[in-house]
Amino acid sequence: MKDIQKNYTMLCDYYELTMGNGYFQSGIGDRIVYFDMFYRDNPDNGGYAIAAGLEQVIEYINDLHFTDEDIAFLRSKGCFCEAFLNYLKDFRFEGDIWAVPEGTVVFPNEPLMTVRAPAIQAQFIETYVLMMINHQSLIATKASRLTRAAKGRAISEFGSRRAQGADAAILGARAAYIGGVGATACAIVDRDFGVPATGTMAHSWVQMFDTEYDAFRTYCEIYPKNATLLIDTFNVVESGVPNAIRAFNEVLRPQGITRCAVRIDSGDITYLTKKVRKMLDEAGWTECRIVVSNSLDEYIIRELIRQGAEIDAFGVGERLITAKSDPVFGGVYKVCAVEHEDGTVEPKIKISENVGKITTPHYKKVYRLRDRKTGKAEADLLCVFDEVVDDTQPIVLFDPHHTWKRKTLTDYTATELLVPIFQNGKQVYTLPTIHEIRAHCAEEIEGMWDEVRRFTNPHNYYVDLSQKLWDIKHSMIAEHRKQV
Amino acid sequence: MKDIQKNYTMLCDYYELTMGNGYFQSGIGDRIVYFDMFYRDNPDNGGYAIAAGLEQVIEYINDLHFTDEDIAFLRSKGCFCEAFLNYLKDFRFEGDIWAVPEGTVVFPNEPLMTVRAPAIQAQFIETYVLMMINHQSLIATKASRLTRAAKGRAISEFGSRRAQGADAAILGARAAYIGGVGATACAIVDRDFGVPATGTMAHSWVQMFDTEYDAFRTYCEIYPKNATLLIDTFNVVESGVPNAIRAFNEVLRPQGITRCAVRIDSGDITYLTKKVRKMLDEAGWTECRIVVSNSLDEYIIRELIRQGAEIDAFGVGERLITAKSDPVFGGVYKVCAVEHEDGTVEPKIKISENVGKITTPHYKKVYRLRDRKTGKAEADLLCVFDEVVDDTQPIVLFDPHHTWKRKTLTDYTATELLVPIFQNGKQVYTLPTIHEIRAHCAEEIEGMWDEVRRFTNPHNYYVDLSQKLWDIKHSMIAEHRKQV
Repeated sequence: MKDIQKNYTMLCDYYELTMGNGYFQSGIGDRIVYFDMFYRDNPDNGGYAIAAGLEQVIEYINDLHFTDEDIAFLRSKGCFCEAFLNYLKDFRFEGDIWAVPEGTVVFPNEPLMTVRAPAIQAQFIETYVLMMINHQSLIATKASRLTRAAKGRAISEFGSRRAQGADAAILGARAAYIGGVGATACAIVDRDFGVPATGTMAHSWVQMFDTEYDAFRTYCEIYPKNATLLIDTFNVVESGVPNAIRAFNEVLRPQGITRCAVRIDSGDITYLTKKVRKMLDEAGWTECRIVVSNSLDEYIIRELIRQGAEIDAFGVGERLITAKSDPVFGGVYKVCAVEHEDGTVEPKIKISENVGKITTPHYKKVYRLRDRKTGKAEADLLCVFDEVVDDTQPIVLFDPHHTWKRKTLTDYTATELLVPIFQNGKQVYTLPTIHEIRAHCAEEIEGMWDEVRRFTNPHNYYVDLSQKLWDIKHSMIAEHRKQV
Repeated sequence: MKDIQKNYTMLCDYYELTMGNGYFQSGIGDRIVYFDMFYRDNPDNGGYAIAAGLEQVIEYINDLHFTDEDIAFLRSKGCFCEAFLNYLKDFRFEGDIWAVPEGTVVFPNEPLMTVRAPAIQAQFIETYVLMMINHQSLIATKASRLTRAAKGRAISEFGSRRAQGADAAILGARAAYIGGVGATACAIVDRDFGVPATGTMAHSWVQMFDTEYDAFRTYCEIYPKNATLLIDTFNVVESGVPNAIRAFNEVLRPQGITRCAVRIDSGDITYLTKKVRKMLDEAGWTECRIVVSNSLDEYIIRELIRQGAEIDAFGVGERLITAKSDPVFGGVYKVCAVEHEDGTVEPKIKISENVGKITTPHYKKVYRLRDRKTGKAEADLLCVFDEVVDDTQPIVLFDPHHTWKRKTLTDYTATELLVPIFQNGKQVYTLPTIHEIRAHCAEEIEGMWDEVRRFTNPHNYYVDLSQKLWDIKHSMIAEHRKQV
């Protein structure tokens, strides 16, 4: 069905290739290494993020290959050895990947994905994995915030024209749907992903006719069941609403149609919607919905609702599709361990002069601990891969920075967040439908305390380390400080 | 060479299709209309923007077509008539397009593109045209600002991993190159667009070896002519620089190589680079360049230089590739005229309760007026299509909002900004190379007064209307106010 074919193997940072060639030439290209993908801060100072983008990462991994032209291009750069270029001819991903399913609520400093693979391969996929998960998680998170702000009112994604390129428009709309937005204005997203596309008219429709009334009447005649009239081309109150009511009366009423809508894209939304609601109701169009757009975001939506604006649905464009208020999801991809030939796993750490950039070493597991009575998430726990949390036993959690802050959970469930996606290069994960992902996301949000979900000063959700992992991390930091 | 094939016909707002079907059913689908693409505010409160994205718009227009699957999909939506779906089978663009060449300095409220075509066609291309020009102009403008801030120091684009999807990474890097950034980290951009790709190592390279020194030494052995060592994995001053100097001494010096580099990606850049410069110089590595990265933008770069940081080159990632500080270029696409069967052109206007959203009507020309002595641009002038500016005669310009502000130019040149791109659906424009576009952009910046180029409170460059156009616009506003 899709007539878009892409291969993005070459969408990599050039240093993945210089490092790959370097690992190859130093004979460590096949050493098994572990990388974690994680992020450090929630967008918009929020309390959580929504993981998204995994499906496209899986497509990318399945399709990894270098064409002869790619290899000729790389040869022309003059810095790769022939043996490495030859190796690239049969390059594919042969490792293991675990990841958090799309639509899951996630938190800073826990792996959203762990990759175990020969060094060249694990290194190579860094750029695309980050780009895809960063982008879609950013937009899904923004959409989740918008959805919460709108308190049940419908939101459509309207942003293609301001998106940062075609994928930003298309996959951004996909991510927005995952995060809770109900529809998109972009036709290709409906065709390729099944996100319902909606849309009716621009100002140009109104201008194309001799009068606003002619434009409205014609539209109602052609689309009697889907008449959303844009009423702000000239003047909402003096011209737009009266002409809309006249068109509704003359075209829809005789057909017994009572459902219709008007859209306002400029001006004082609170004032206008209250006025418009009154005019529509007085004319007997109580079922006519009012849709608003014009540079909305979660803060403006919350404020409009607080002011009592009469709004049934929102169209959100540029501030959703670019996540304008905080347009970067800062996911990173860091080595956390190497595996020796005897199978032992040696943890690796990156120390940094920026304390926040010190990594948590080792091949890890992530557990989400939920209160058994409320079902709400209480904390996430990072463990070493060989640890098992037995949720029939009490567990003591402690703050990794202020270790005297402790908490014991007794009546809880422990669920692993990372699920197997690839094993030995083969996909072992069955992709859920986008509707399943969206439903999962809604459940996930429901499973969080309000303190985590609020916009202002949200609770810092606990992402703790097991005692074993904490000990390993801190002995490694101490070791490095000794060496320096 | 490209193994990316895309057709983005269906990347349109759904309302382009509902309106298209509506124009079709009301018998006005073939009426010739004029649309202008323009923007209202410069990004980052700057004094100008750089136009970019035209090449991809041309590719899109040339490739416009609906597949049978697209039409089947549209049929399944149940709101398009069969005659219209049939019309879409042979749909292509048959109109005229004029546009500002890529790399040109542009200003708010002047057309970057004018489209003259049958209504359905002119309407249909709205979303993609806006998306492409908005995105690339945004990034080219940001790159131009960064380039100015760096005062001749090299800048590389590093942002793929934080880009909003693949096109944001690829075409963003293209636009960054147009705006003055000299290289990209993204390999595919080099392969497909000839933007030089560069890159050496990540922290993972250092962590993959037993010691930092082993990592550096191995890298220098493999890439003696391109050794840029990342020196902040553990500790820049205590460990990174001494290990780098040792590797340079042991591997490069015996080969007589004096050019190399170190990169710092964290910590106090000003402090560290001064210290590192001193250590390198004292060790005889005066030609070793210092490259810095870590969430840079034009403001931080300007400040680092002001503080005397010892920096030879910058890597700029997320804040360039997303234009983080102002990630939306708000271009719009508005009807400005319709053409009657006798060839007369009737201007159209959109009035708005937001004064800034009132459009300038009519099929227009844009002249750039430059001082003949200095070569610097003095003002842009919008005229009605049938007006001609004779630059051998003095010209009186006036502010369109405060018409008593007047200025007479005598010794000037007048050049039209919009050039023909398509005529009757055929491309008549020869695409410049990306290197030509970049050179054009550099010349354009050179042709602007410093007052326009500065970051803080730049001069509001004049975009004036001819008396004829001003009279038409204001009589139309008056007419509308009378009707209401």
